[in-house]
Amino acid sequence: MSSRTSSPNGGMVPVDEALSIVLRAAARLLPVIVPLEDALGLVLAEEICAPDPLPPHRASIKDGYAVVSSDGPGEYPIITESRAGNDGADVEVTPGTIAYVTTGGFSGPVPHGADSVVQIEDSEPVNDITNVRKRVKILVEVPRGHDIREVGSDIQKGAVVLRSGELIGSAEIGLLATVGVTTVKVYPTPKVAVLSTGDELVVPSTKILGRGQIRDSNRPMLLTAALQHQCKVVDLGIACDSEESINKIVDAAIESKVDVLLTSGGVSMGDRDLVKPILKTKGTILFQKVFMKPGKPLTFAQITTKSEDGGSKTVLAFGLPGNPVSCLVCFYLFVVPAIRSLSGWPNPQLTRVHARIAQKIMASVDRPEYHRAIIRWEFDDGSGKPGFVAESTGGQVSSRLLSMRSANALLELPATGEILGVGTSVEAIVISDISSYPLKLSGKVAPNIS
Amino acid sequence: MSSRTSSPNGGMVPVDEALSIVLRAAARLLPVIVPLEDALGLVLAEEICAPDPLPPHRASIKDGYAVVSSDGPGEYPIITESRAGNDGADVEVTPGTIAYVTTGGFSGPVPHGADSVVQIEDSEPVNDITNVRKRVKILVEVPRGHDIREVGSDIQKGAVVLRSGELIGSAEIGLLATVGVTTVKVYPTPKVAVLSTGDELVVPSTKILGRGQIRDSNRPMLLTAALQHQCKVVDLGIACDSEESINKIVDAAIESKVDVLLTSGGVSMGDRDLVKPILKTKGTILFQKVFMKPGKPLTFAQITTKSEDGGSKTVLAFGLPGNPVSCLVCFYLFVVPAIRSLSGWPNPQLTRVHARIAQKIMASVDRPEYHRAIIRWEFDDGSGKPGFVAESTGGQVSSRLLSMRSANALLELPATGEILGVGTSVEAIVISDISSYPLKLSGKVAPNIS
Ligand SMILES: [Mg+2]
Ligand SMILES: [Mg+2]
Repeated sequence: MSSRTSSPNGGMVPVDEALSIVLRAAARLLPVIVPLEDALGLVLAEEICAPDPLPPHRASIKDGYAVVSSDGPGEYPIITESRAGNDGADVEVTPGTIAYVTTGGFSGPVPHGADSVVQIEDSEPVNDITNVRKRVKILVEVPRGHDIREVGSDIQKGAVVLRSGELIGSAEIGLLATVGVTTVKVYPTPKVAVLSTGDELVVPSTKILGRGQIRDSNRPMLLTAALQHQCKVVDLGIACDSEESINKIVDAAIESKVDVLLTSGGVSMGDRDLVKPILKTKGTILFQKVFMKPGKPLTFAQITTKSEDGGSKTVLAFGLPGNPVSCLVCFYLFVVPAIRSLSGWPNPQLTRVHARIAQKIMASVDRPEYHRAIIRWEFDDGSGKPGFVAESTGGQVSSRLLSMRSANALLELPATGEILGVGTSVEAIVISDISSYPLKLSGKVAPNIS
Repeated sequence: MSSRTSSPNGGMVPVDEALSIVLRAAARLLPVIVPLEDALGLVLAEEICAPDPLPPHRASIKDGYAVVSSDGPGEYPIITESRAGNDGADVEVTPGTIAYVTTGGFSGPVPHGADSVVQIEDSEPVNDITNVRKRVKILVEVPRGHDIREVGSDIQKGAVVLRSGELIGSAEIGLLATVGVTTVKVYPTPKVAVLSTGDELVVPSTKILGRGQIRDSNRPMLLTAALQHQCKVVDLGIACDSEESINKIVDAAIESKVDVLLTSGGVSMGDRDLVKPILKTKGTILFQKVFMKPGKPLTFAQITTKSEDGGSKTVLAFGLPGNPVSCLVCFYLFVVPAIRSLSGWPNPQLTRVHARIAQKIMASVDRPEYHRAIIRWEFDDGSGKPGFVAESTGGQVSSRLLSMRSANALLELPATGEILGVGTSVEAIVISDISSYPLKLSGKVAPNIS
């Protein structure tokens, strides 16, 4: 990395170092106990064991007849019908008799005495109305245990079904319900407060802009981005560029016990860029410039306050740049891992994949660049093999929010100043769910290579 | 494909055909208008154009001085200070004068007359208190337009910023706010009702199971799975295996105008598997067996009812298998694309990638299998190149919900009966967000190859 001033990179912290600082500060929150239905998407904070085996009884895999396997083929009387639920609980299948069983979709119990199941397709009904009991002809010989799920074959009694640190999705909700867990200890997600700063900002509903005014896009963008990461959010509105205005709102946010404070704007080098000096008075600035493009002015501070009970409470404050692209890129690269770490994720890092670029891209010469792109799996990524192909979202000026439209990845391009040719494999940081669709951009959005 | 009965595949519909049938039936819902903050994650149902250009005025990219570029280096008086907002609106920079400008984080206006910006680092303050006006020494020559964002350079007035069919994420929310959109036309997500059926089922809070009883895991699992896909959900509880019980609840669900009805259980071949016959009396069964493993008994019906206003309302009814794994696999393969289609996604299909398997797997001989796995990007996927590696979640018995734990992909394995060796590349259907972390499974969960 080049050094343009006396301190390396002009005081700019490299991205990986800045991320380490953020993650060290973002200790997971204290666990809470929530009803099962509220645990979706959260990280489990306890080990879960099965109180009983699954299946709790020997269960038939097929609809058919429970038999004594040594009986073999032949005609037998049906002594009971064991469907789902409690049917046939007291009946024993003795040699020379059989019982009707069903899977019950899932869990038809096999009566005592029987040691195998013959599926209905391997039997024939016997039309003999002179008998009290219905009779059936078994056509095949089956081995012991055939088409029977033994007790505990899916989950043994006492087995660990989920461990602390696992992310709870719908399958895990199903597992928890299976073992009778209806309240569960999880790590909560943080409460995130969002403030926009700037005399130029007006609320988005403003129809006619006055000179020098722009609509505040960062606040709705950050609030919804935090919501997408399951946070609780607090909208702090817009502060003007005065120490008093920003101070008052920041103090109120700290008072209200938010875990994360996101401000945007006010971190450039202008004489009314007040966020850094204000954060300095509240807590400790851990970095205030990052060696990246966009996002250089990103500032990170830790604010610790004493609570009434003598404990302390930490607020992680991110002074995000006012440029909407810089703001959102910094949100993904630093705030998302912080949210995940606070939420108890054992690995809060963003997923990285490799992708081949579909257009040539000129890498920045001064700082590593996070180039917005849409990645998409192709059966031939250009190398003759399947892989991700990355399409640039076009002009990468940091004010141009259109470059974030539909973007599902940030291509991490080292500061070589080189032109990367079509098909070059680069690292891509996944920033949204690739299991949802990325639309093909139209030809109208011309990618600028700069 | 093998044919074991007179009709090909015993009446089983191939997966791709079943999916086409589902998607044809899942016409997108009528658009609604919602406040911007409620549009997150929904598909836009209108084209959005910019009512004004962005920036709305010439804006400085740097903190520094707005100059007349032809003046060149030298000492100049500062005639005004144009920060963010409305400062310096009426002042004109004439040759021989300069104005202080800031990026305002984003949008500092450049006064009339000036045609370039010189960053503060390329100037020197002049300490001359005898002058009324502060003076500054400009050290460099800059070309016309230097460090100025022209009006409309980010978004031109009238430009299409978002098109109908685009998925609204936080960047798109930011774009909508930028152009002053505060209510937006979107496709709503469906209302999904979930019913479990089976005499064997008890509520998850049941501590001690009676003989033949199991806890109902499918209902919380499906409800949360639908929630994760942003649906509104209705919990229909548990129906016992009686026509009256199921009938009553299904009728109530249809009455309450749900878009999707999910039942689980009651679709096997047992004499109390009542879901298929009941759906037949309500509407049209479009298929009732699918050539896949697990999930063979999956049933799909379309129920159309007349509404009071003379219009009609369609309910898509999925009779999901009772086995929890079969149930969830069918949810991902068929219900998720249906939800997406109803929600207006132009491409409702699940994302497919390729992955190399980390253990040998024996492909099923009778039906294509959807093998649960965790895929993870590795810098060397075993071929010496980066790629996805798929780790099996172990025993794939369809009752074993543990095989869905942490699974983020379904490996689609054709019914060859072959043993697929370590490193074989297979198609993987992505079923959850790979930008979240998949935990490494411990060695204790031994993968069964069967
Ligand atoms: Mg059943
Ligand atoms: Mg500002």
